[in-house]
This record gives sequence, structure tokens and C-alpha cells, in this order.
Amino acid sequence: MNPFQFTLETTSGAARAAQFATPHGVVHSPAFMAVGTLATVKALDPEDLRAMDAQMILANAYHLHLRPGDETIRELGGLHEFMRWDGPILTDSGGFQVFSLEGLRTVDEEGVEFRSHLDGSKRRFTPESVMRIERNLGADVIMQFDHVIPGQSEHAIARDASERSLRWLARCRAEFARQNDVDVIPGRREQALFPIVQGGIHADLRREAARAIREMGDWSGFGIGGLSVGEAKPDMYRILEEVHEELPADRPRYLMGVGFPEDLVEGVRRGVDLFDCVAPTRMGRNGAALTKDGRINLRNARHRADPGPLDEGCDCTTCRRFSRAYLRHLVTADEMLGLRLLSLHNVHFLVALMREARAAVADGTFDAWSDAWLARYLAGERARGAVARPVLPHFKKS
Amino acid sequence: MNPFQFTLETTSGAARAAQFATPHGVVHSPAFMAVGTLATVKALDPEDLRAMDAQMILANAYHLHLRPGDETIRELGGLHEFMRWDGPILTDSGGFQVFSLEGLRTVDEEGVEFRSHLDGSKRRFTPESVMRIERNLGADVIMQFDHVIPGQSEHAIARDASERSLRWLARCRAEFARQNDVDVIPGRREQALFPIVQGGIHADLRREAARAIREMGDWSGFGIGGLSVGEAKPDMYRILEEVHEELPADRPRYLMGVGFPEDLVEGVRRGVDLFDCVAPTRMGRNGAALTKDGRINLRNARHRADPGPLDEGCDCTTCRRFSRAYLRHLVTADEMLGLRLLSLHNVHFLVALMREARAAVADGTFDAWSDAWLARYLAGERARGAVARPVLPHFKKS
Repeated sequence: MNPFQFTLETTSGAARAAQFATPHGVVHSPAFMAVGTLATVKALDPEDLRAMDAQMILANAYHLHLRPGDETIRELGGLHEFMRWDGPILTDSGGFQVFSLEGLRTVDEEGVEFRSHLDGSKRRFTPESVMRIERNLGADVIMQFDHVIPGQSEHAIARDASERSLRWLARCRAEFARQNDVDVIPGRREQALFPIVQGGIHADLRREAARAIREMGDWSGFGIGGLSVGEAKPDMYRILEEVHEELPADRPRYLMGVGFPEDLVEGVRRGVDLFDCVAPTRMGRNGAALTKDGRINLRNARHRADPGPLDEGCDCTTCRRFSRAYLRHLVTADEMLGLRLLSLHNVHFLVALMREARAAVADGTFDAWSDAWLARYLAGERARGAVARPVLPHFKKS
Repeated sequence: MNPFQFTLETTSGAARAAQFATPHGVVHSPAFMAVGTLATVKALDPEDLRAMDAQMILANAYHLHLRPGDETIRELGGLHEFMRWDGPILTDSGGFQVFSLEGLRTVDEEGVEFRSHLDGSKRRFTPESVMRIERNLGADVIMQFDHVIPGQSEHAIARDASERSLRWLARCRAEFARQNDVDVIPGRREQALFPIVQGGIHADLRREAARAIREMGDWSGFGIGGLSVGEAKPDMYRILEEVHEELPADRPRYLMGVGFPEDLVEGVRRGVDLFDCVAPTRMGRNGAALTKDGRINLRNARHRADPGPLDEGCDCTTCRRFSRAYLRHLVTADEMLGLRLLSLHNVHFLVALMREARAAVADGTFDAWSDAWLARYLAGERARGAVARPVLPHFKKS
């Protein structure tokens, strides 16, 4: 029996409360997945993630292939054992990273040749080699190798990339099946391969891609890629609505690389179950914190002697213990504890936000809850004169 | 009644197992105190320190005066509340830091004028102003403001500095007494002022200083300063023996700034109860770890695929969970978790070392235990071709 069972519990419009079973435990969705690119969620301890009841975390095939090497991780018992996280893990294939190496890579039908961002060494990723890497890492869910393009790409370019991603998906699946008989990691349990729906901001391409993927067979879940990469927010929301209509209701949908609070709520409204983003830990390392009234920057002098917590009513271990004044002191003094405590709060914020959304779906109050939540958060953002969220750099080395 | 009661439990030669009561709990000695210069033990969470049963920690008056300001900390309820450490705290006066500002400070009988290492602003420390700063911070034990000199200073210079330190001690005590009636921090409990025995590597000066301090009155404990600042190790050990003979047996002795494992064991052999040093956290941030067989550097390629713990048999939360291979990966990738896990192990190593020494004194096996411990540790150091420990930079900004 397929160990990757997805069970819908309640729906509210397109929003869904569900359970996604994996060999390393059940993911209660909607859920935000913290990103542990290099087999560590930056600045956090696995115990921190367990304490906040994080449901599932991410790691990255490209980065771990380069350092310490997926073979090394396999020898050491796989990713779960290596990083001591016994909950569900998903690995991204590295498509996004490889295609971000502008000027350092060449693409053909076979795959991508690129130079390592670490030492400039020449490497080649193909759908087959990426499957072998993700097998070695041993995550529960592994993503296909896909052709990623900028968010505003025109129709013809988006079509080419989407169609190539479909052909590469077929090759991923063949290689994935071939490796199913090999005992890659002793005691390793089964993995699920997720396809990725591409097609840029073009509704017809997105629908065609979703249909083509479904025609290829049954999948345990679906990735939605190529969003939050520079396109306008209304475009992202519109595309989610199109894709929602094409994907099967009884499988999880994972919106890749999206992690701003308002996008999570808007995503849940459009049928998304899983999210991930480096934003909460990156913001934490930059001295910024998420609150129910928008983002704040701890470097701001007005927090200098503030005895209150980062976010009133938050039950994370940062807010339960420390004042804004202390956190500001740590951040201005570049103390590591400050970066950890802010990262911890920010990841907890998104994990708890999705927990709240799940509860609202379950008890039939999701519409009112999400309206109120967004109104408060966005009012706070406007009051601080926040412009649209900052566009994330297209490629961050680690 | 003086809340700073020191109770000897057992002795073994000069070595002592004792309890030192403070308003924030009992310190079981000998004990290593982790250094939280800026009101945070670098890279660690107060929970980490509690989990390893750290007995007492340090903070620094000079650094906290400059940032965030001792007045700010007082307004926020004092250091314990600010950094959320409810165990005993000791503050160093900042004498060491101020005198390390070579070229940026001028000394006269009144005090020291110096420029902040942060913004170059002109400041003045006097025994009186330092007492007010340490009152504002509200630690349990506060150190006198003293005149610190390099470790190899000649007799005349050492005499001048030692005698000035004695005169400054009298002024510290007068100011300390004056402030005893003021409710500096609401609910603040009592503080103890420790004098510091100076005198460089000159036995006669050390003995004279110790006697002069004792003649000034009763003290709750004694600092031994100006060691581990560039002098040879045999000089340090010899001076400890001289000072041991002059200090009262029924008061704790705190050897300032000393924290290499072999020096801790040698110090306990010579009657020292308390130690502190930035070495374990600084080593952790540099990728080095303490083991019972000497120091290791995780950047070394031989740890690349090593599934074993940092230190066999260690029960710290790093060694109980993570392999050398994973820690090496984190360190080479500059991941914050790696620096935290190594710092945690290193501080735990010294805290546990003193716990072991205490148990050996208590059960009468200290001589054999310390011989065996030093033999194993130093053999490991020699096998790795370690030269004498690196001399710490004279002044580290934070």
C-alpha cells in the first residue's frame, strides 16, 4: 500500500484541512515547511522545530550534492539520521538553484551543465542524476527536476520550459522506478516523487501542464512551481485558482518557495496545502520579525527599552521569555542568540499561522478568520509604510 | 545575615569541594563560569546553560555600559531579568577591557579616561563610577575596578599597579557601601563586592596584596587577577601557590580569565574555586572542540564521514545527537547551528570537568583523578602536535 495517504478532513470553499501520511509521520495541513537548505534550518536546532510542532521540513538536493555530497549523507544513513530530524522531509531537486546560475549554465534536452557556486567545478544535472541524488538523501518526498524560468517570461518561453519539464518528469519517473528496487539507504523507507506544475503566468499553459501530468499517471502529490519569482501578486493568486481547478482534490498541493504570511493565507484560500520559504529565517538574520500587525525591524531605536514581547500573545519560546529591548540589544550587537531567537519566532509564526488556518477550516470559520487576519496584518504593514514585500534575490548561495 | 555564605565540604590537599550561596542560588564549586560579555553567552541560550547545570555565569560592566547601557538594563529590571538567567551572575568591572585599550586611554590616580571601542566617544571610569555601573546591572557578585598590567610586567610597574588597585579597592568599597541604602533595582537583592589580588608574577607583591586586602576588612570572596595574560604557565601555577597560602580558607577564590582544561585542573589543585574564560565559546566559533584526548579541529578532513560523537562518553546535547561528520559539515558551511553546537559542547566540557573534579574531591580520589585526567588530555594534545595553547588576543571587542 502507498504509505503517502492524503486524507481530507474538512473543506471551506477551496481551503482544506487534511492529513498527509508519510513514512516519518503525518503532516497536518495546511502547513508551512521550514527550509533547511544545507540539512539545517538556519540558526535553529531540530529541537526548536519539534517544540513548535513543525510538521515537515525541506532540504535542497543541489546544495547537499555539492556539500557534503549526497553519497556521504547516504553512507551516514540518509538525511533524517544525518541532521537528526525524524519527522517528514522533502527535498527540492535543485532545479531552481541550477537555473538561477545565470551565465554559469547551459541547458539542452539532456539536462543542465553548470559550474558549482562553491568552487567553479563543472557539473551536470539530468533528470536521472537528480533522482539518484534525491534517493541518496532519502527524504520522504522528492521533487522532480524541472526547467525553471523567470516569473514574467513570455508565452513561448514558458511553453518550452513547461513542455521540457513534462518530458523530464517522464525521465524522472522512469529512473525513480528503476531505483525502487535498490536498497539505497539501509532501512530506508519509501519515497514519493512529486511532479511540478509549471507554465509561468499563463493560464492555458498551467492548465495544460496540470492535465498532462495527471494523464501520466497517479501521483502522491503535486508541486506548483515558478511562482513568487518576480511576477505580480494578483498574477500569482490568479494562477493558483486556475491550477486548483485542474488538480485532483484528493492529493496534496505544495506551492513552492512561497512564505510571506499574506501569501500563505491567500494560498490556503486557493486550495494549497503546503508551503516553504527561506523568508522567515532570512528575515530573522536581518533583525526583522513577523507580528500579527505586520513586520517590525528590531534595529529601530523605538524598541530600545521596550519590555514587551515581539508579538503580543505569541507562545513561542522567544516571546515567552525575552523583551524587544533584549532582542534589539542582541541584534545590534550581532549576537548569534538574537538571530536564533528571531528566526525561531518567525518560523513559529508561520507554523502557528497555518495551525490557526487549519483550525478555522475545521470549525467552519475560515472565511471570517482569514478576512480578519489579513485585514489586521495588512493594516499594520500599511501603517509602517511598508511597500510590497521585498523581492528575494534570485539566487542565494546557501 | 550575609547571604553570601561559603561552606567547605571536603578538601584534598589544596583542592576544595564547597558551596557558595548567593541570592540567586548556590554555586557548587569548583565551578567553571561561562562568559556572557554582552548579557549572552555567545551562541548559547540560557536554556542550554540550565540544561548543563551551569552554576554561575559572567557578564561585563565595560561592554554593557557602552551597549545597551547599564541604565537601560536597570530600567528593565537588571541583568537577571534582562537576559532571563535566574541563576547567580558575576560582573567583571571592565578593568581588563579598559586597560587593554592601548593608546586609547590615559590613567591617573582618579581613574581611566578612554575612548569607546564602538564609536570613539570619550569616557571616564573611576572606582566610583564602575561601582554605580555594576549596581545598575545588579549581578550577585561584582568585581572591584583594578589596574591591570601585562603578564610579564617588571617589579616596579607591577608594584605601582597593585598598590593603585588597593587604593581603588578602598574607594570601591566606600561607594559600594554608600549605594547599599539606595534601591537601585526594585526588588534587587544584595550584592557582594570581590577585591582582586594583583601583583603580576612577583610572589612578594602577590603576598603583600593579599595581606593588605585582608587587612581592609572581611570579604565574601577574592578575585585573583592578572594571570593567563601572557606569562609562562609555571609562573601562573607558582603564583597560585603563593596566593593560596595568603587567602582565608573559608572564602571562595576566583581565578579570573582562566579556562583551558589543564589550567582548571591545575587551578583546583592550588585551591581555586571559580574560573571563567571566553575560550570554550571562542573555540566553538572557530570550529574547534575540547575532548578528553585534547582539542580537535572539525575543519580537518579526517572528520568528513566520521559517525562518532565529538567526545566519546560525553552526555552533552551535542554529543548525544550529532556525528562529527554532521558537525564538520555545519562548520565548513558556516552554519550557525554548528557554532552553537560546538560552543555548547565546549562550555559543557568545562562545566562537567569541574563537576568531576568536585566529585573526586568529595570521595577522596582527587589526586589520582587529576593525575590521570591530565595525563590523558596532555598526551592527546602532544599526539596532535599541539604547541602550547594559543595566547588569547589581549582585547577582543565583544
